[in-house]
Amino acid sequence: MKFSSTLLEEAVNAFSKLPGVGRKSALRMVLHLIKDQTQKSEKIIQSLLELNDKLKTCKKCFNYSDEEVCNICIDQHRLKNVLCIVESIRDVMAIEETQQYSGRYHVLGGVISPLEGVGPDDLNIDQLCQRIDEENIEEIIMAVSPSIEGETTIFYISKKLENKNVNISMIARGVSFGGDLEYADELTLGRSIQSRTPYVQT
Amino acid sequence: MKFSSTLLEEAVNAFSKLPGVGRKSALRMVLHLIKDQTQKSEKIIQSLLELNDKLKTCKKCFNYSDEEVCNICIDQHRLKNVLCIVESIRDVMAIEETQQYSGRYHVLGGVISPLEGVGPDDLNIDQLCQRIDEENIEEIIMAVSPSIEGETTIFYISKKLENKNVNISMIARGVSFGGDLEYADELTLGRSIQSRTPYVQT
Repeated sequence: MKFSSTLLEEAVNAFSKLPGVGRKSALRMVLHLIKDQTQKSEKIIQSLLELNDKLKTCKKCFNYSDEEVCNICIDQHRLKNVLCIVESIRDVMAIEETQQYSGRYHVLGGVISPLEGVGPDDLNIDQLCQRIDEENIEEIIMAVSPSIEGETTIFYISKKLENKNVNISMIARGVSFGGDLEYADELTLGRSIQSRTPYVQT
Repeated sequence: MKFSSTLLEEAVNAFSKLPGVGRKSALRMVLHLIKDQTQKSEKIIQSLLELNDKLKTCKKCFNYSDEEVCNICIDQHRLKNVLCIVESIRDVMAIEETQQYSGRYHVLGGVISPLEGVGPDDLNIDQLCQRIDEENIEEIIMAVSPSIEGETTIFYISKKLENKNVNISMIARGVSFGGDLEYADELTLGRSIQSRTPYVQT
């Protein structure tokens, strides 16, 4: 793409580095911001500057936060003795979207993956153990991706918590809504039969 | 989507205002910028600030430009006496991508559309007439969208240029490469038969 303006080209280059954005989409975004009269561009600049300056990591759950402790950890309406263990901040948001969980979270920051050089010490597992003692946690829900690495991480954490008085549960695994049985992989389908639940008439 | 951080939420809101970007994509972009160590975020801020401050409109062709006159108009290797008339800056880039045109451009800023309240005076048509006189333009190529509004605009411009010594041509209209004949609309297919070209063995 040849540009009449170097400034324009630089802006398109900067935007095309964003995930899922190619040169044409980047150009569309930049032209949109140039034409715009409602200061969208100012808002993007402002919010990025503030993120760079002020964004913290919650010292309890390791989610992003404005203050030392994040909005979710500080919320008095949430259950205090249940923790949901997730890999990343995006998983927190995905679970929040469901509106089915009212406890707090603990973000591991990944899963144990020897191939990628991620060991237990790279994750927030020690902090989890400490929280369980300090905050009198009664249940932890493992909401880690269903993969070999995820399973390994769950196994490692459950071993570490063996002699603590805490219930460990896992989110259900099975066929997804709207999914066709014939296209489900054997592992998922096998698990969904093993973990069958009693039918309740509604 | 519930956010643990208000700063994060504001950044996601700002990005989700971009064209073609929903809340999930915006979140993905913002998280990418937060984690990033290569100052992508700084680059976006910098380029947007510079665009806001410094971007000009070329006084000749009305394309975006860094200086009074844009990179394309100032290029000495380009044909001086051919102008390509386009609706928008994006069309300039689309034509530049083809590498088939080496003249200059004139950006109209839209097409005549009474329904949307766009008349000839809202477009850069007078400036076009002036350029044709001043720059000794010999040919203008109409590369305007094939629509009723586009045709009206071409008709209006050609009427205005009637007594000037300038050749007016139009970009070819016909079936596109890879397109199936049976799915081409009648107007396009009809035109492609009317404007058939002699077959040349290659």
